[in-house]
Amino acid sequence: MGSLESNWAESCQFKPLDAEEFRKQAHQMVDFIADYYKTIESYPVLSQVRPGYLHSCLPESAPYRPESFDTILRDIQKHIIPGMTHWLSPNFFAFFPATVSTAAFLGEMLCTCFNAVGFNWLASPAATELEMIVMDWLANMLKLPKTFMFSGTGGGVIQNTTAESILVTLIAARDQALDIIGVENTHRLAVYGSDQTHSTFIKISKLAGISPRNIRSIPTTIDTDFSLSPILLREVVEADVAAGLIPLYLCATMGTTSTAAVDPIEPLAEVANEHGIWVHVDAAYAGSACICPEFRHYFNGIERVDSLSLSPHKWLLTYLDCCCLWVKNPSSLVKALNTNPEYLRNKPSESDSVVDYKDWQLGTGRRFKSLRLWLVLRSSGVMNLQSHIRSDIRLAKMFERLVKSDPRFEVVVPRKFAMVCFRLNPYSQFYSGYTEMLNRKLLEWVNSTGRVYMTHTIVGGVYMLRFAVGATLTEECHVAAAWELIMAGAEVLLKGDL
Amino acid sequence: MGSLESNWAESCQFKPLDAEEFRKQAHQMVDFIADYYKTIESYPVLSQVRPGYLHSCLPESAPYRPESFDTILRDIQKHIIPGMTHWLSPNFFAFFPATVSTAAFLGEMLCTCFNAVGFNWLASPAATELEMIVMDWLANMLKLPKTFMFSGTGGGVIQNTTAESILVTLIAARDQALDIIGVENTHRLAVYGSDQTHSTFIKISKLAGISPRNIRSIPTTIDTDFSLSPILLREVVEADVAAGLIPLYLCATMGTTSTAAVDPIEPLAEVANEHGIWVHVDAAYAGSACICPEFRHYFNGIERVDSLSLSPHKWLLTYLDCCCLWVKNPSSLVKALNTNPEYLRNKPSESDSVVDYKDWQLGTGRRFKSLRLWLVLRSSGVMNLQSHIRSDIRLAKMFERLVKSDPRFEVVVPRKFAMVCFRLNPYSQFYSGYTEMLNRKLLEWVNSTGRVYMTHTIVGGVYMLRFAVGATLTEECHVAAAWELIMAGAEVLLKGDL
Repeated sequence: MGSLESNWAESCQFKPLDAEEFRKQAHQMVDFIADYYKTIESYPVLSQVRPGYLHSCLPESAPYRPESFDTILRDIQKHIIPGMTHWLSPNFFAFFPATVSTAAFLGEMLCTCFNAVGFNWLASPAATELEMIVMDWLANMLKLPKTFMFSGTGGGVIQNTTAESILVTLIAARDQALDIIGVENTHRLAVYGSDQTHSTFIKISKLAGISPRNIRSIPTTIDTDFSLSPILLREVVEADVAAGLIPLYLCATMGTTSTAAVDPIEPLAEVANEHGIWVHVDAAYAGSACICPEFRHYFNGIERVDSLSLSPHKWLLTYLDCCCLWVKNPSSLVKALNTNPEYLRNKPSESDSVVDYKDWQLGTGRRFKSLRLWLVLRSSGVMNLQSHIRSDIRLAKMFERLVKSDPRFEVVVPRKFAMVCFRLNPYSQFYSGYTEMLNRKLLEWVNSTGRVYMTHTIVGGVYMLRFAVGATLTEECHVAAAWELIMAGAEVLLKGDL
Repeated sequence: MGSLESNWAESCQFKPLDAEEFRKQAHQMVDFIADYYKTIESYPVLSQVRPGYLHSCLPESAPYRPESFDTILRDIQKHIIPGMTHWLSPNFFAFFPATVSTAAFLGEMLCTCFNAVGFNWLASPAATELEMIVMDWLANMLKLPKTFMFSGTGGGVIQNTTAESILVTLIAARDQALDIIGVENTHRLAVYGSDQTHSTFIKISKLAGISPRNIRSIPTTIDTDFSLSPILLREVVEADVAAGLIPLYLCATMGTTSTAAVDPIEPLAEVANEHGIWVHVDAAYAGSACICPEFRHYFNGIERVDSLSLSPHKWLLTYLDCCCLWVKNPSSLVKALNTNPEYLRNKPSESDSVVDYKDWQLGTGRRFKSLRLWLVLRSSGVMNLQSHIRSDIRLAKMFERLVKSDPRFEVVVPRKFAMVCFRLNPYSQFYSGYTEMLNRKLLEWVNSTGRVYMTHTIVGGVYMLRFAVGATLTEECHVAAAWELIMAGAEVLLKGDL
């Protein structure tokens, strides 16, 4: 009994959120994070741990009694940080960088602070309305037509990732079509992308019940810089129609993951429009560049598409997750995705005077997602965001010049944005398998130093290295140092010492 | 030229993340948030703004030049906070509360800080491995069988919401079935829930291509406290089989949204197992109670189900979003959801020695989601989390006693956890429409005061009020004050003054 009673006394004191304790510990965490940012270059950018490393560092089960914040913070330093691949490191040139800013961090703190669950307007009016405003702001910055804005006839919503943006628009398109042709014809629906469209597109299409036989990955070649050819699209669509299929959805990409290729929106939309195909533009990475007038032409024809998604976490400094989706016809989304359980009914929703974002997305609950983007736009101003895009591109151009200046290397695909696809190719007379082996070894060596992290791809049968500039802390000196390291690797490799 | 040059000079200075600037502003934000938490009771819990209020407060477009942090913070205080429904207010008794803690806030700060994109193991080894460990820890706390743990033969993953947990398991079940029966039989698949299953279940089933005709919402009644009857399930399943359909998936609920009803897992799973139906348990809200031995019996039979999801953001203090999903057979998820683009290939993944969480979820990118839950489990200890659950239930029992002590009120559905479904019913001889009108008016009056926020539901034709205890800051005095307010409302109402 005695121990039960003392347990009871202890537990009565448990206050998960005490404002002053919060203040104290959160200040401590701010310093921990600021120090981490200051010293980030001292860590290997690519984690050097082995699979399963953490298991032996942590106990088998959660502690029965509370542990102090200091103990936990020590474990983070000792066990978690060595297992991190440091995406914020200025030496991170892999994948596409995930960009950050003080402003977005503050926005995220605020979002967490409120913990508002904005499934409908009433549950958090500010969360819904700020998102609508910010989506229109960004649409304006991108010079999207009014048909995508709330101030026009469309509207936008923040999804977590591109996968969700594709899913909800594909479902909207599917259900519109099935309303006419009947669910028994689902197996006749066909969807279109190129062999460079993000792998998620195929996954999501299957998930939405599109027959795997009808998911088209139209081949691309170096002749079009690996962009989707409208001529080929027309051929494939017409063959499908002739075979009794019903063309449903085209996913065009602005800035493919492998090489940042840009599908030509205008002529692709022309083909699609003729056949009543829903056109979605996945501009996750490169769309952000269109806030600069000199890149806006890549969006030519955007007025002819049905939906567009773009992830500010990739190039507009917002931290993950933030994928902006605009649609011309929000009611098609709402029709496919709305729910109306009694326990969520309320007067504003019933009066149709508000947006309930639960009907624009997969789940019900949602965070106050727009705060991060709002703080970035205001703290930076359009001016600084434009210069940030230009600065990354300037650094990529610099890297491109360095590659071109060394006859042992070549740029494989023309650079459009802040990513350079290149390879070591010293003996052009050698067979391609040998060149690939050289580049694989070079990449492995560079990454193993912990001083740079790059990744690779294979496009058109060619193995190439991807050097993606854009980690927020990267400066000219880091790009220069990365090139020095790559050259050093090539040196050792070509001497036969690797 | 002059202005272009000065622009260039300005833009060169743009540093989105400067460690010392970060430190300064983040400290300022910590104080802003701590002050908000201290004064949260001074705000109306349910926002009193009108639709469209924010539009007139903010400019039409993003600023061209940067704005200061102080300006933005002033706008948050002046324009955003009035539009918040304060989910953290101790006077919030609506829906299910979204619970929080200092520990989880710190975990979220750290997750944001790293901004690691853990789509595969190599991209962030610690993110993947900590999630695996934490999922096993929580499984242990819930006394789940080893078949759901990495240390056994299963495994867990953190999804954002229940919708995603249902989606990925339904797709895994669907694809397993279609492998055998062929995609042309998709229209024969049938899924099962009760009329109390979360509305998301129907939405997700349609999304996954299940014919709307084959989505069963089996009726429940007050006789089973609105839980799904295994006898009825068997009847419906057998009728479907007789009609040539193929039973695929059952979503059982532990703690329904309307009344926190608990479907009896063991006998339902028995029926389902006989027919090879995938059983998913949605324990989003009430599952957390099973960390206390006295509630664990609600999970009896859990060893017979295929998957289970539970949202710590609802009752385990983690902030949104955090939905834990355990599956018995991870390879069925991976088979349905894996992608393998060249640019993500790497040695650890190819060696099959690691988990790549991108293949357990919808999208590719994912945040370091386990940090929040890890910090909560360690900072609280199992002991304090148990006492936190018990404390909420104690407060709900107190409210229940108050309702029962007043002959004008009645508890409509037996209380199981920390939510009380009740109504004002002073004249039992009156027709039900009148009673409903009384309760609608009472709810509207209570919520309009801004001193309490409750919501309603209709179950079995009865309109009732839901009083959900659990907002992290709620103490006994808030429950007592809420009851005083409700009584005061009833008083005015019954005098005919409303």
